[in-house]
Amino acid sequence: MSRFAGREGPIRLGMVGGGQGAMIGAVHRTAARLDGGYELVAGALSSTPQKAQASGQEIGLQSDRIYDDFTQMAERESQRSDGIEAVAIVTPNHLHLPAAQAFLKRGIHVICDKPLTGTMADATEMQAAVKESDALFILTHTYAGYPLVREAAERVARGDLGDIRLVQVEYAQDWLSQKPDPDNKQASWRTDPARSGIGGAISDIGTHAWHLLCHITGLQPEALAADLQSFVPDRQLDDNAHVMLRFAGGARGTLWCSQVAAGQENNLRIRIFGTKAGLEWAQENPNRLILSPLGEPARLITTASPATGENARRLTRVPPGHPEGYFEAFANLYCEAEIAIRAHRTGAALPEGVQFPTLADGMSGMRFVQACVQSSNANSAWVTL
Amino acid sequence: MSRFAGREGPIRLGMVGGGQGAMIGAVHRTAARLDGGYELVAGALSSTPQKAQASGQEIGLQSDRIYDDFTQMAERESQRSDGIEAVAIVTPNHLHLPAAQAFLKRGIHVICDKPLTGTMADATEMQAAVKESDALFILTHTYAGYPLVREAAERVARGDLGDIRLVQVEYAQDWLSQKPDPDNKQASWRTDPARSGIGGAISDIGTHAWHLLCHITGLQPEALAADLQSFVPDRQLDDNAHVMLRFAGGARGTLWCSQVAAGQENNLRIRIFGTKAGLEWAQENPNRLILSPLGEPARLITTASPATGENARRLTRVPPGHPEGYFEAFANLYCEAEIAIRAHRTGAALPEGVQFPTLADGMSGMRFVQACVQSSNANSAWVTL
Amino acid sequence: MSRFAGREGPIRLGMVGGGQGAMIGAVHRTAARLDGGYELVAGALSSTPQKAQASGQEIGLQSDRIYDDFTQMAERESQRSDGIEAVAIVTPNHLHLPAAQAFLKRGIHVICDKPLTGTMADATEMQAAVKESDALFILTHTYAGYPLVREAAERVARGDLGDIRLVQVEYAQDWLSQKPDPDNKQASWRTDPARSGIGGAISDIGTHAWHLLCHITGLQPEALAADLQSFVPDRQLDDNAHVMLRFAGGARGTLWCSQVAAGQENNLRIRIFGTKAGLEWAQENPNRLILSPLGEPARLITTASPATGENARRLTRVPPGHPEGYFEAFANLYCEAEIAIRAHRTGAALPEGVQFPTLADGMSGMRFVQACVQSSNANSAWVTL
Amino acid sequence: MSRFAGREGPIRLGMVGGGQGAMIGAVHRTAARLDGGYELVAGALSSTPQKAQASGQEIGLQSDRIYDDFTQMAERESQRSDGIEAVAIVTPNHLHLPAAQAFLKRGIHVICDKPLTGTMADATEMQAAVKESDALFILTHTYAGYPLVREAAERVARGDLGDIRLVQVEYAQDWLSQKPDPDNKQASWRTDPARSGIGGAISDIGTHAWHLLCHITGLQPEALAADLQSFVPDRQLDDNAHVMLRFAGGARGTLWCSQVAAGQENNLRIRIFGTKAGLEWAQENPNRLILSPLGEPARLITTASPATGENARRLTRVPPGHPEGYFEAFANLYCEAEIAIRAHRTGAALPEGVQFPTLADGMSGMRFVQACVQSSNANSAWVTL
Repeated sequence: MSRFAGREGPIRLGMVGGGQGAMIGAVHRTAARLDGGYELVAGALSSTPQKAQASGQEIGLQSDRIYDDFTQMAERESQRSDGIEAVAIVTPNHLHLPAAQAFLKRGIHVICDKPLTGTMADATEMQAAVKESDALFILTHTYAGYPLVREAAERVARGDLGDIRLVQVEYAQDWLSQKPDPDNKQASWRTDPARSGIGGAISDIGTHAWHLLCHITGLQPEALAADLQSFVPDRQLDDNAHVMLRFAGGARGTLWCSQVAAGQENNLRIRIFGTKAGLEWAQENPNRLILSPLGEPARLITTASPATGENARRLTRVPPGHPEGYFEAFANLYCEAEIAIRAHRTGAALPEGVQFPTLADGMSGMRFVQACVQSSNANSAWVTL
Repeated sequence: MSRFAGREGPIRLGMVGGGQGAMIGAVHRTAARLDGGYELVAGALSSTPQKAQASGQEIGLQSDRIYDDFTQMAERESQRSDGIEAVAIVTPNHLHLPAAQAFLKRGIHVICDKPLTGTMADATEMQAAVKESDALFILTHTYAGYPLVREAAERVARGDLGDIRLVQVEYAQDWLSQKPDPDNKQASWRTDPARSGIGGAISDIGTHAWHLLCHITGLQPEALAADLQSFVPDRQLDDNAHVMLRFAGGARGTLWCSQVAAGQENNLRIRIFGTKAGLEWAQENPNRLILSPLGEPARLITTASPATGENARRLTRVPPGHPEGYFEAFANLYCEAEIAIRAHRTGAALPEGVQFPTLADGMSGMRFVQACVQSSNANSAWVTL
Repeated sequence: MSRFAGREGPIRLGMVGGGQGAMIGAVHRTAARLDGGYELVAGALSSTPQKAQASGQEIGLQSDRIYDDFTQMAERESQRSDGIEAVAIVTPNHLHLPAAQAFLKRGIHVICDKPLTGTMADATEMQAAVKESDALFILTHTYAGYPLVREAAERVARGDLGDIRLVQVEYAQDWLSQKPDPDNKQASWRTDPARSGIGGAISDIGTHAWHLLCHITGLQPEALAADLQSFVPDRQLDDNAHVMLRFAGGARGTLWCSQVAAGQENNLRIRIFGTKAGLEWAQENPNRLILSPLGEPARLITTASPATGENARRLTRVPPGHPEGYFEAFANLYCEAEIAIRAHRTGAALPEGVQFPTLADGMSGMRFVQACVQSSNANSAWVTL
Repeated sequence: MSRFAGREGPIRLGMVGGGQGAMIGAVHRTAARLDGGYELVAGALSSTPQKAQASGQEIGLQSDRIYDDFTQMAERESQRSDGIEAVAIVTPNHLHLPAAQAFLKRGIHVICDKPLTGTMADATEMQAAVKESDALFILTHTYAGYPLVREAAERVARGDLGDIRLVQVEYAQDWLSQKPDPDNKQASWRTDPARSGIGGAISDIGTHAWHLLCHITGLQPEALAADLQSFVPDRQLDDNAHVMLRFAGGARGTLWCSQVAAGQENNLRIRIFGTKAGLEWAQENPNRLILSPLGEPARLITTASPATGENARRLTRVPPGHPEGYFEAFANLYCEAEIAIRAHRTGAALPEGVQFPTLADGMSGMRFVQACVQSSNANSAWVTL
């Protein structure tokens, strides 16, 4: 029986990272708030104590629950009877592990931004920390929260596509096309090996693409051959990657990710081709799934429409034609996590269909990044996964 | 000086309507919650007291702030020191007036769903009620909350299009294509003159299209000629309308709205043509505005991109390519209202750029509906607006 | 038995109009040539004899078959044993009638550009001339030649859409947005009542939209209410038109045509909504037909794909995904005409499925134009068709 | 001075291949006919003499110019005073070389379908044959004939994109997704190494994609790493290929071609990203080029619009919005060839801007295919080009 067994009402949430100048922290807060399932009550929002204070006040935290660092927060919150039940970790990658460890060992659930960590060594430690803890670990691969991504996964699983032959996934942006302004906090840490880890674009967005591919297709990766580049002068990490993929059973694929593709905003897109049908989904137009049965007209399956299954529809809030987007997808992860956290209180089983990316997905992503770097360093030799 | 002058923190909000089986109430709650600016603390969620109770409990209201009816709620909340500062009215149209009156006369701001009322008589009384009250009146023409709608309005205002010649606006749905299930609450009241008022589709979605047109173009309507139809047998109100429009200065346009257009989900779309350029926006793909300068390639202006002005960007939360949708647009109205409500406390001026649909827009909408009905009854004769 | 009964090989074709500075004449020549069914052997290409000579030489006609005017051409060609069997009339509207008369009365088939004539009086005479002649009369409503337009018509006819409720058709261009250069021959005659006739845009492109609507839906028009405008100063004919439509059986629709819609190139588009499904086709993307059964995902039906019927596939030349366009559609009309002309030689019946716009379509178009002008002059009063 | 120096009128054309059951031969005939520049007068349309006869009669050739084989045709035509000046070779790949040799050595220009040959050995011989002949050699990489492809190439060349970093090109079809019917002549020879050569999809459509990439970007290829697959059981040649590309100067790219991608019809698509802008074009929607300057809205450049340069506009026949497609692109190659053939008669220089794929492009394509096969056989090792 969890020590949160008697709790009622919104889940009390803390946050590590996400202070002034951050981006994804505010997204997590909005996502957590959207459906009313969480209440943000504590934060260690910056590694600079002064900034942590200012940031905490700005978002309206009580002064005694604004912490200088995550260790302090983990200690004190775990001692309060009204302490946080879950924490969102939204720091640069290198802090995912120590922050998660601090909360996991105190039984506080962790909702961690992707990628799992910056390095494989950290990932291995994270794996151990999760294993040793009773608490839940949720990894926010946002795009898995889109209803039509879930619909796609279900359709693949039930055989609508036949046997999968090919998967083409890509994630293209252009916001790092030039040497970034040093004041751009988002750009700075993502291009710094000390904070981002072994990968640049391949880690930051490549792991999203990888997760989407694995999540929808269920394919078992076998090997990859990668060619990573840094196009912007003096950049220390990759800003573009081409990857060829081989899966168990003979399926093949490619993954392209880029942060220097002029004109591409946030173009995550997947196409899957099976013996019976093709399937296509793109994040920038997320309320449409195109299913193309071989020899028949393509079908446009829309969010919330009768053509979608129960699991996809469970994750929508409005009738067809009312576009849901990035925040709703993100909030869906928080909703699924909420159900899991509530079930965890009493040890109840997770209701059928509830799902979210977890440690295993994070480990898969890290193995993917490592293999890409390794292959690219070996002149694109195939690396077994 | 408002009696809410000393207030801090989220705005305390009440709700009338939006109980079990309702749709738009939940949308209002989510929109109010999304950015953390409001706290829903009281409700008269149904005209059936038992249902009002159950609904209030379901969404977690304190039992002493779940009311049997809006009159009771208005009285008691206005007497509490922590009473609501604003109320969202999300009932069928015929209740907009009495509910609004109850709160306006007690100085509680009203956030009212559209259309303003069901009848012109009610609208006139609403106008008086708003005039007599010091409180604010906000009408939730959702689509005005989309950043690119604001961008469009700014571009028209600053002359990017030259003089406007033509406007084509349409709002097409198909969910009332057949005789609805009597248990479908949404369909029932919208097709019932006693609750919907004098218009069917023309009132329910035609007013949205009309507001969008007026909001973006700033054109002064002069006259209209309308042909309204009821395609579904035994339907008492229009489910489709064709309207030709004339504006001051010679501009012309058409408005089409339908709830029986098979395959159309929620297709609100506007095209504007001026002497210098054309402009196009569609609600189902709301993060893209197409500007077509005469003789030059069309430009795709995207949400949050550098091409957008300050006012549009102020209403976005994430970088380009992360789709925002219906809820974010709706939340933007709540954000603008929040700024106005806070300014109202001390009598401060509204910051530049803050705007939301208000009584004048509601009156314009009602005159539009009335003129359509009148024209259609007169075999589409032109009716002056 | 026709006097062309013994003929073999390509059909010998003459042309009236289409000289230097013309546009549609070259299109007809290309369309006639595309599938090898015709040989252009004679021409009266301009009303200015000198220009007629120069134009004829330019396109490689034999000098003795370059004529000063169509009367001369009709006389001499009808006397030659190798004389033309058909003539393409591609002049401004006011010459359609006299040119057609000259050939029809000599038993030479007429392939006439649209609209039928410039005025209703001319149309009535044309009707008589066709009636009195044994020769065929083909009107080139180009867009009827698109395979997916034929597919659409078949699907409507066999009931895929159920009973039609609504039709929205539009044809928008922007090339007459400004006062045209006087040297622009295309613009000059189209904006000149003496050559264009009673209508401007409504005649030039409105009749195309009207034909498309009638051809696909098969609906019987009952009445229309129109509002015609001339936006460009000093323009004598309409350059924009809004039309509301009523059909037998209760179906309704709108037609919008414009030559002053900035950013619109040649946007002819139709949407049809029935009790069972909706249908959409657009000329600028002509190889895709969208069918939306009520409550089911929309289907993308592509040119030459297995989803198309025999009649549509008969009009395509390449496998799916190889775009066919304007010339191929135009050539399809010439192909159908060729089949009819060959059948006419021996009095054989037209093979099933062969069809093309003819005098009846032209008369329908002229009645449409006249009714629009009449309605607009009567402040948009409904005019019975 | 060419022996065709005195010729006038349409160019007399012969054809090798393209008999009954063929596909691309009819396309060549239509393309040659579209603008009136050629007259097809002779043919050896099949390697089966009987079929050659029947096919020749079917398309209306004079009986004395229907030949049993291409050797006979080359001999006899070269002896006629009115003999062919050019020949279109539209056979399976293995016959390109011997057929071309027969005509080249007699000074007859060759218009040859792609790929250049089936094997590298043949390609080398073809190179010699072209070198030894005074005649022209034109390779029909159709897609180079699209006006907007030319526009793209010009814009890249003049620096609109800055330095190119990335190129993603793909050509996906699904028509070989299953074991083909043995009667399907198109499928049979393309999947037969004896007739297709060393490559399957990589040769048939991969070379198109490769040419498009090279033509538009002008990049110098350095190396490639390829993974070729045969998904359909018992297929002897590749039906899908993933290729990673490296270019001189550091640009990188990928090429994907497939004939087993369910739902893809003829999806040739290229995206190019430079330091200043991105560019996108897709064959199935060929009248639109998307240019995305970094930090600015994307521009939609349409065929025949004022935004296009002289060279692109020279290749269009109608105003904007009148879709031109596959046949017009193909005809543009024939038009360019016609200009070159006429210039060749007198030794005149080719007018500026006239261009078409030639032997060098064919050799580049063959080296590409060979390198792909070699790399794939070496487990995707990088192969220098």
